[in-house]
Amino acid sequence: MLWAYAQRLTSFRFLYILFVASSSVEHGSARITSTFIRSEWPSIDVPLDNEVFKVPKGYNAPQQVHIIQGDYDGKAVIISWVTTDEPGSSKVQYGTSQKKYDFSADGTMTNYTFYKYKSGYIHHCLVDGLQHYMQTGGQTVLFVGDLSYADRYKYNDVGIRWDSWSRFIEQSAAYQPWIWSAGNHEIEYMPNMGEVFPFKSYLHRFATPHLASGSSNPLWYSVRRASAHIIVLSSYSPYVKSTPQWKWLREELKKVDREKTPWLIVLMHAPIYSSNVAHYMEGESMRAVFESWFVRSRVDLIFAGHVHAYERSYRISNIHYNVSSGERYPIPDKSAPVYITVGDGGNQEGLAGRFYDPQPEYSAFREASYGHSTLEIMNRTHAFYHWNRNNDGRKVATDSVVFRNQYWASNLRRRRLKKIL
Amino acid sequence: MLWAYAQRLTSFRFLYILFVASSSVEHGSARITSTFIRSEWPSIDVPLDNEVFKVPKGYNAPQQVHIIQGDYDGKAVIISWVTTDEPGSSKVQYGTSQKKYDFSADGTMTNYTFYKYKSGYIHHCLVDGLQHYMQTGGQTVLFVGDLSYADRYKYNDVGIRWDSWSRFIEQSAAYQPWIWSAGNHEIEYMPNMGEVFPFKSYLHRFATPHLASGSSNPLWYSVRRASAHIIVLSSYSPYVKSTPQWKWLREELKKVDREKTPWLIVLMHAPIYSSNVAHYMEGESMRAVFESWFVRSRVDLIFAGHVHAYERSYRISNIHYNVSSGERYPIPDKSAPVYITVGDGGNQEGLAGRFYDPQPEYSAFREASYGHSTLEIMNRTHAFYHWNRNNDGRKVATDSVVFRNQYWASNLRRRRLKKIL
Repeated sequence: MLWAYAQRLTSFRFLYILFVASSSVEHGSARITSTFIRSEWPSIDVPLDNEVFKVPKGYNAPQQVHIIQGDYDGKAVIISWVTTDEPGSSKVQYGTSQKKYDFSADGTMTNYTFYKYKSGYIHHCLVDGLQHYMQTGGQTVLFVGDLSYADRYKYNDVGIRWDSWSRFIEQSAAYQPWIWSAGNHEIEYMPNMGEVFPFKSYLHRFATPHLASGSSNPLWYSVRRASAHIIVLSSYSPYVKSTPQWKWLREELKKVDREKTPWLIVLMHAPIYSSNVAHYMEGESMRAVFESWFVRSRVDLIFAGHVHAYERSYRISNIHYNVSSGERYPIPDKSAPVYITVGDGGNQEGLAGRFYDPQPEYSAFREASYGHSTLEIMNRTHAFYHWNRNNDGRKVATDSVVFRNQYWASNLRRRRLKKIL
Repeated sequence: MLWAYAQRLTSFRFLYILFVASSSVEHGSARITSTFIRSEWPSIDVPLDNEVFKVPKGYNAPQQVHIIQGDYDGKAVIISWVTTDEPGSSKVQYGTSQKKYDFSADGTMTNYTFYKYKSGYIHHCLVDGLQHYMQTGGQTVLFVGDLSYADRYKYNDVGIRWDSWSRFIEQSAAYQPWIWSAGNHEIEYMPNMGEVFPFKSYLHRFATPHLASGSSNPLWYSVRRASAHIIVLSSYSPYVKSTPQWKWLREELKKVDREKTPWLIVLMHAPIYSSNVAHYMEGESMRAVFESWFVRSRVDLIFAGHVHAYERSYRISNIHYNVSSGERYPIPDKSAPVYITVGDGGNQEGLAGRFYDPQPEYSAFREASYGHSTLEIMNRTHAFYHWNRNNDGRKVATDSVVFRNQYWASNLRRRRLKKIL
């Protein structure tokens, strides 16, 4: 099912307005467990000699090109690529019109081994000061983790599958920034092969602008992109009180300026609210630490992956849960984020087809088929959101919501938030 | 209050039987919040030129000597020390009688910088094949984290305080093994000083036998010592499903053999059950991940630190908590461990004097004064346990319990456990 990998994403448009086929207001609809059943084709690998994996022609030709926003505010880009015959140059030449490259930037080169596999020469080059790039806006992919699933292979095939997957996504990832977050399949803890350093392949291959947001680790970081402040958390790094990620997030939330970036979005891999049988309650550990911050900071949307199905929550919280007393269920909370699990991009493992019955009160819509979400931010108060079923190649908007901004859509709540912060 | 550092410990005797002044059976007593009030002396530093910190005489004399069990089964020891004038040798000579050192072992040397501080030459030497050492039994210190509190200092003083503290503990740590677990004060995430690598000082200075138990990281590991299997967990490393620590613990619990080691003990820093206001519910994140394993594996005792007070729980669990339904409180559970918070060894920060009122049903005994615990394993069914108040220098057994082994004290439950595993 490799064709679907590229759609494990939340596509994020700033300027375009799509026709909204069947919009529902945020709190207006009853709980829905979709009855759609996707025809269950077998999840077989695309052969390695397929066209989509092809190596570019020419001696030492760059391959596996991908880009990500390179700074905090969207005036830079990190360009990454791999050369295989020799290290070659890590320089990028660029300019303001085609064929006229007046500027250049120097990057860095790295490589690594995994079992007996030796990677190519991996280049990362930060290109800065891009007024023009910023102004064009355009689409951004928010990727909620589990990239290549190369960890389902063994020995040297792990590295080989990273290479083929990275060539496969180039058609998209070289032309629009993908905002990466890491999933459990990136950990690659394989002691039987002598590989125990978590995220080794991922960290060598995928750069993030973590230093620009004051993060000490590429696995968690933040970017401000157009009208959204996007925070990427690492489900598989320490996040309890006193850890670097915890301290970083506490500071980062203070830096959010809803005047500059009205929308506040968080990405993580393991969902905090999901009623799917697969990976049920794996997000509890992070919920216990961060949920109250998400509510207090009026986060608009939290996207997660991990579960191979789609689910959207109502605005609910469980912050009154107390190990000695208090609530035991999540309760409606207008200050809470909407939690969206969109781990349904497709992969070797197939769909997670079993949801807990009855559907919990916090669950607004759920369906186990392949798909992806799109979010179009219209202005500081409203955004159009769709979850699109990939019904065997066709995009079908299936869950549609108009989201109201958690800060700007209510003057009263905005004033309250100002008082708290 | 540096005099108390050495008593942040659970002393663990195998062979000695102490007179039990006031024993209470495990489930027999009502909840107690002790009314003892310790006179609140100010927590001031012992001056650096105090006798307890003195540097040994002689050129390049070894200092900061400490030992830890060096293998899985207690036939080895890791000896660590620091030299300051030059690297010197990492060799240890040893023998079966004093002054007759027929054997030798070669160690390794490391050093590090922290801000502008340069450490001495830190030696770790594994001495293996020690039949004799094992046979003498003796006392072991189980240390539940937060060693030197050097992170409360700045710049070069961080490293200097690690050195002085390590000289201070030598009088105990050089002569009996201390089983280390790391606390939040070991993280030392100090971006303003350019130091962001977690546990940098700790990992250089304190070796653990992690490889012997198949762990990929010195922060979590296990040792079998006399009749106890002791598992050390890291509260500040990743532990959710799919992470290395999670995978390691899953395998390690399978390796526990209650025939060989009847007693199963877990150490961690942040307590899972504590009703102190300080750090309340910081253990929730780990509870959500591991509690059901602790119950299913019939862990006898879980020791934690972090909270600067003492508390012992009844056998309770909250494994029926469910984010969609289920229990909201911990309930009595004969299969559950007893949770003991013994973070009351004393430190710069003073005592955590406020407990939540009323005392939760899961809390058996709590008191906010300085102290330490002792555990004497008598046989495979019974162990004598005391929490001893350090009443300004004098040791006063204050909470005393006879623990029955979770595996051996009931034939019925032993048979059930065999079926599950």
